[in-house]
Amino acid sequence: MEFGSFLVSLGTSAIIFVVLMLLFTWLSKKQGNFPIYYPNRILKDLEPWEGSSLTRSPFAWFREAFSTPEQEVVNVSGVDTAVYFVFLSTVLGIFALSGVLLLPVLLPLAATDDSIKSNARNTTDTVSEGTFSQLDNLSMANVTKRSWRLWVFLGAVYWVSVVTYFMLWKAYKHVSTLRAQALMSADALPEQFAILVRDIPSPPSGQTQKEFIDSFFREIYPETFYRSLVVTENSKVNKIWENLEGYKKKLARAEAINASTNTRPTNKIGFLGLVGKQVDSIEYYTELINDSVAKLETEQKAVLAEKQQTAAVVFFTDRVTATLAAQSLHCQMSDKWTVTEAPEPRQLIWKNLKIKLFGRIIRQYLIYFIVAVTILFYMIPIVAISAFTTLQNLKKLLPFIKPIVDIAFIRTILQSYLPQIALLVFLALLPKFLMFLSKAEGIPSQSHAIRAASGKYFYFSVFNVFIGVTLGGSLFDTLKVIQKDPKSTVSILATSLPKSATFFLTYVALKFFIGYGLELSRLIPLIIFHIKKKYLCKTEDEVKEAWYPGDLSYSTRVPGDMLILTITFCYSVIAPLILIFAVIYFALGWLILRNQALKVYVPSYESYGRMWPHIHTRILAALFLFQVVMFGYLGIKEFIWAVLLVPIIVISLLFGYVCRQKFYKGFEHTALEVVSHELKQSPNLEEIFKAYIPHSLSTHKGDDHQFKGAMSRYQDYAAISAA
Amino acid sequence: MEFGSFLVSLGTSAIIFVVLMLLFTWLSKKQGNFPIYYPNRILKDLEPWEGSSLTRSPFAWFREAFSTPEQEVVNVSGVDTAVYFVFLSTVLGIFALSGVLLLPVLLPLAATDDSIKSNARNTTDTVSEGTFSQLDNLSMANVTKRSWRLWVFLGAVYWVSVVTYFMLWKAYKHVSTLRAQALMSADALPEQFAILVRDIPSPPSGQTQKEFIDSFFREIYPETFYRSLVVTENSKVNKIWENLEGYKKKLARAEAINASTNTRPTNKIGFLGLVGKQVDSIEYYTELINDSVAKLETEQKAVLAEKQQTAAVVFFTDRVTATLAAQSLHCQMSDKWTVTEAPEPRQLIWKNLKIKLFGRIIRQYLIYFIVAVTILFYMIPIVAISAFTTLQNLKKLLPFIKPIVDIAFIRTILQSYLPQIALLVFLALLPKFLMFLSKAEGIPSQSHAIRAASGKYFYFSVFNVFIGVTLGGSLFDTLKVIQKDPKSTVSILATSLPKSATFFLTYVALKFFIGYGLELSRLIPLIIFHIKKKYLCKTEDEVKEAWYPGDLSYSTRVPGDMLILTITFCYSVIAPLILIFAVIYFALGWLILRNQALKVYVPSYESYGRMWPHIHTRILAALFLFQVVMFGYLGIKEFIWAVLLVPIIVISLLFGYVCRQKFYKGFEHTALEVVSHELKQSPNLEEIFKAYIPHSLSTHKGDDHQFKGAMSRYQDYAAISAA
Repeated sequence: MEFGSFLVSLGTSAIIFVVLMLLFTWLSKKQGNFPIYYPNRILKDLEPWEGSSLTRSPFAWFREAFSTPEQEVVNVSGVDTAVYFVFLSTVLGIFALSGVLLLPVLLPLAATDDSIKSNARNTTDTVSEGTFSQLDNLSMANVTKRSWRLWVFLGAVYWVSVVTYFMLWKAYKHVSTLRAQALMSADALPEQFAILVRDIPSPPSGQTQKEFIDSFFREIYPETFYRSLVVTENSKVNKIWENLEGYKKKLARAEAINASTNTRPTNKIGFLGLVGKQVDSIEYYTELINDSVAKLETEQKAVLAEKQQTAAVVFFTDRVTATLAAQSLHCQMSDKWTVTEAPEPRQLIWKNLKIKLFGRIIRQYLIYFIVAVTILFYMIPIVAISAFTTLQNLKKLLPFIKPIVDIAFIRTILQSYLPQIALLVFLALLPKFLMFLSKAEGIPSQSHAIRAASGKYFYFSVFNVFIGVTLGGSLFDTLKVIQKDPKSTVSILATSLPKSATFFLTYVALKFFIGYGLELSRLIPLIIFHIKKKYLCKTEDEVKEAWYPGDLSYSTRVPGDMLILTITFCYSVIAPLILIFAVIYFALGWLILRNQALKVYVPSYESYGRMWPHIHTRILAALFLFQVVMFGYLGIKEFIWAVLLVPIIVISLLFGYVCRQKFYKGFEHTALEVVSHELKQSPNLEEIFKAYIPHSLSTHKGDDHQFKGAMSRYQDYAAISAA
Repeated sequence: MEFGSFLVSLGTSAIIFVVLMLLFTWLSKKQGNFPIYYPNRILKDLEPWEGSSLTRSPFAWFREAFSTPEQEVVNVSGVDTAVYFVFLSTVLGIFALSGVLLLPVLLPLAATDDSIKSNARNTTDTVSEGTFSQLDNLSMANVTKRSWRLWVFLGAVYWVSVVTYFMLWKAYKHVSTLRAQALMSADALPEQFAILVRDIPSPPSGQTQKEFIDSFFREIYPETFYRSLVVTENSKVNKIWENLEGYKKKLARAEAINASTNTRPTNKIGFLGLVGKQVDSIEYYTELINDSVAKLETEQKAVLAEKQQTAAVVFFTDRVTATLAAQSLHCQMSDKWTVTEAPEPRQLIWKNLKIKLFGRIIRQYLIYFIVAVTILFYMIPIVAISAFTTLQNLKKLLPFIKPIVDIAFIRTILQSYLPQIALLVFLALLPKFLMFLSKAEGIPSQSHAIRAASGKYFYFSVFNVFIGVTLGGSLFDTLKVIQKDPKSTVSILATSLPKSATFFLTYVALKFFIGYGLELSRLIPLIIFHIKKKYLCKTEDEVKEAWYPGDLSYSTRVPGDMLILTITFCYSVIAPLILIFAVIYFALGWLILRNQALKVYVPSYESYGRMWPHIHTRILAALFLFQVVMFGYLGIKEFIWAVLLVPIIVISLLFGYVCRQKFYKGFEHTALEVVSHELKQSPNLEEIFKAYIPHSLSTHKGDDHQFKGAMSRYQDYAAISAA
């Protein structure tokens, strides 16, 4: 890629970004768009912005996003969101601090050497001619082999590493405090009073699962056991309940149409409402609802009496006991009565709870295998795409497109965007598949499944995008070499890195300008909302559903950022210019997503920062990859002092080990010093218990006696605490 | 080694064994020897044997050892001892079951083939001539390459493996039950009411370490926290206390001499009592005692007030809370306030408690490194010894001994015993060094340190004895080959295995006949006791000290047995005759040590079977080594179906993984279902607390107030349990 096409790509992206910004400023001031630009505030019954809307400057969002204190972010959007911003700001800090030293020192050093020119003059190898552009003059590729200048580049690796250790240590400490503060909340959080028990053995004959569980826990915790909620097989009752909810919505819609048009709506009862008898909708759905309610009640009773599974949520009267119980071995055979902290009620993946320990382990390894296969098989098309989309290759393979490609404008556009767009589309297909796999592992909570999916996505993107594209650029030359000698992968990776530098510069720029521009302007949700509102929505609920914003979606965002991070680390010393783009990417991201977190997205769960250890480990893994690649690259430059990088590689491993020892357990479990803080008021245990009852099982009449099958005799809390 | 010398060795050993047995029968009936043959019963105030001593048959011990139920062993000698017998009987079972099939099937198969004879006839290679003896005709060495008979040998590997899985599974379940039964004891075991807290941070200014610890735990466990015992720096007070105890003994001795001879004893006060002024011993030691008591009291106060360390034993009012607390995270930073179950009071390694987490980790890795170096450096002399002590080599290197060696009798003795004795002496030097290293790791309890030392000893013996001797036999031929191609180690090991078979047969036989003969007859302790009693002991205490038996000493016994086990596994299919010797070894061991455990040894600690997971893993490791060696050996026999051993190797790994998942946690921690059983009576917490006070700090006047510095305000247990 030439310098010209790079500038065009950058310029186009910047223009699009400015246009999107202006659009956002204009659109977000219109009353009718408020549900799209301020849904989180609307749901919390707040004004879209504080103060008068008339005096508001168009860029006030900028100041607000910047100056809102972290505690406010925690209050509005939860610890997980705040942790995500710690991630962004930490990475920003790493690259800013690295850049401050690397840019003024390394760029002149690289520019004043002339390895490339002299190579181009002396060599007869046609391949190396013309593959370097002006940008390459600013990279390490321009430094002569065995030059004294390589000492400075080696020192730069140390600087980047030390900055990373420092920022990561600070961030881990900070996140740990954030988590502790949230967990010591003076409000009664339901999940702090419960534990999740799995792998419960079959009850002795004459006892129900429920009685067995209750007697087991009452024996161990005679004073602090409250009651238990046995997990049941709910697929049938869920189906009935979903149908019922669907009918209710349709009835509301029919009534709304009736009210606004004064004609009674009708519908056909056959396939998709397209065939069959025409009926009066209101009557039809009312009847269906009555049917379903009766069916639901029968099925609820059947579920609670007969479909008890080998798992349960067990409740305690105080959170210290629940915390202790969640971390302790209950049964001499450790594959029975396994306990964990209870996830939030909304996070429970109900149907995974019954899977037994060895079932979970087998599923896990099976899915690791499937993911490994996926990563390897996806690599082939991606590599092919990157190899094909080099214009030289395209012209060679498809000679008939030559006339089109030779038009300067089209050629530039194609060169700038084609590989990147292919890549972006490609990556968009994957997350749902990985999430499905993660849930199939038997993980009990949503947030845990998301962490697992996110990890898989990270490995996928590093392997396929980074290594795939890097090696792919010169794939047809190098594939044979790797096949012959797999050990040479590192040196081949290091050789081909500089060639792909410009590709990644463009990729990062595209991602932040277009990506964050679309994110801030929310053009697509806005258009969909207006279409739905105008043509489809009849009731208030339907309108709300049309603008309901969803959450920040960690599972795809973090791996995406991680990919940029990995790329930036690896090029930070080879082509320090990338640091500028990375700083812009993470700074813009921090700012724009802060606005979105405060005003748009509604978190769908809270895991109190349990994502952080994963983020930490992966940042460190990226640093490690960077150090290994630099070791290889300095080796290619025939710089024997590259061995001085061995200590820093060892230090990275030690740093990871020490952090794990010091911080990890505090994220894996809840620390007792944290939960021993006093509550504002004694908790309403009945409410806590009810929070865990699935919708399809919670009764419609406020009648609690239905649950006597699956729930234990209610013990009066006051009576216990007075004892 | 020839068949003749093997038979001589076996015969001599058997005769020695019979002589030792007869000696035991005769000596153990004499009243004066009772303290040597029945000390454990004497200490428990029991008769040396049940029933009348006159009608007792000489081999009654045999019947008693055999028929005593396991529960009786647990009562008399503890769970650890019972677990050791489960180990012996499991291994016995494995080899007996293997032998039942392998001996009648494999021996005829090997004997009727004639690979060796035909080789000897056809080959011109002088090395292979004469290295095979009659014994080798019964081993796999005699089977022709690529023979159909190898199928049966392959099947035998499967049989041995399946038998091992079955026996190990049964044993792990059984030991797990033993442990659970002991832990659910209705008596109040002090260690079940306490946890060990380490890595305590510095107290805020104005608070002592003690107050800080108490307030931390009282906050978390307001109702169940009893008090704490801060670990102190005791080296000085221990020194004073030891001196004091020494003076007391000397005073008692002087008084005894005075009483018996009616002359006042004197002693010199200079170096070792050899120089200096002559003084009256009774006066002199009385004065020293008075001095020391005063010094001790001053130092005790100083220690409690000023020498508090960053560790403590924390006591709870019930054992469920203590069990919960020992498994739970107390501090958000997991390198602070780390908790573990408290070891028994007598097991605490007091001076290790103050070492911080990262200090412990660094020490651990450092010591692993030292042990690895030790294993490698010790290998050189052992290999040299085994190589030298082949008579052919000796004659070559030291031609002047030829005339001596040529005398048939000396030659046979040398050939039979020399290498084995060298080996036994060698191995006797090591345990103390490994125990010292294990304690230096910072391990808090005696039993844990012993397990660690035992593990090191196991690796040492497998590496040095087994691999060293096997390769050493043909070392001068093979060392160069290994240096050239390290990957060939397995195939070289497999080639040289059959050559060393007879050596190991003799080693096992020597070990059980001589080793267990000496063990049962206790000749050496008997002689030492009688000498001491006659010439040295003046007081009752001194006599008791002279016969006090010590414990079964796991730390050296288990690795020794493990070595035999590893050797037997590896030869079980190659030379099935070894199974007979192994069965005798483990059967005799089980019987004789049962007698010793019931009547002689006094256990010095109780870890409730925590040794078992280690034993289990190492038996499995030995099986794994066996499978790999067989894979190599069948490969050498050019039997391509050797690949069918790959599944069984994988199954071994899976079996280990499943066992770990199912059983291990129950040994790592105490399960709650176990401790939730009710106690016979409410525990005397003050007694439990006092059990943990080191001797040097426990006061001589029954005055408890001294401890107010390091101990917390006494809370009345009755008051709490009534609340």
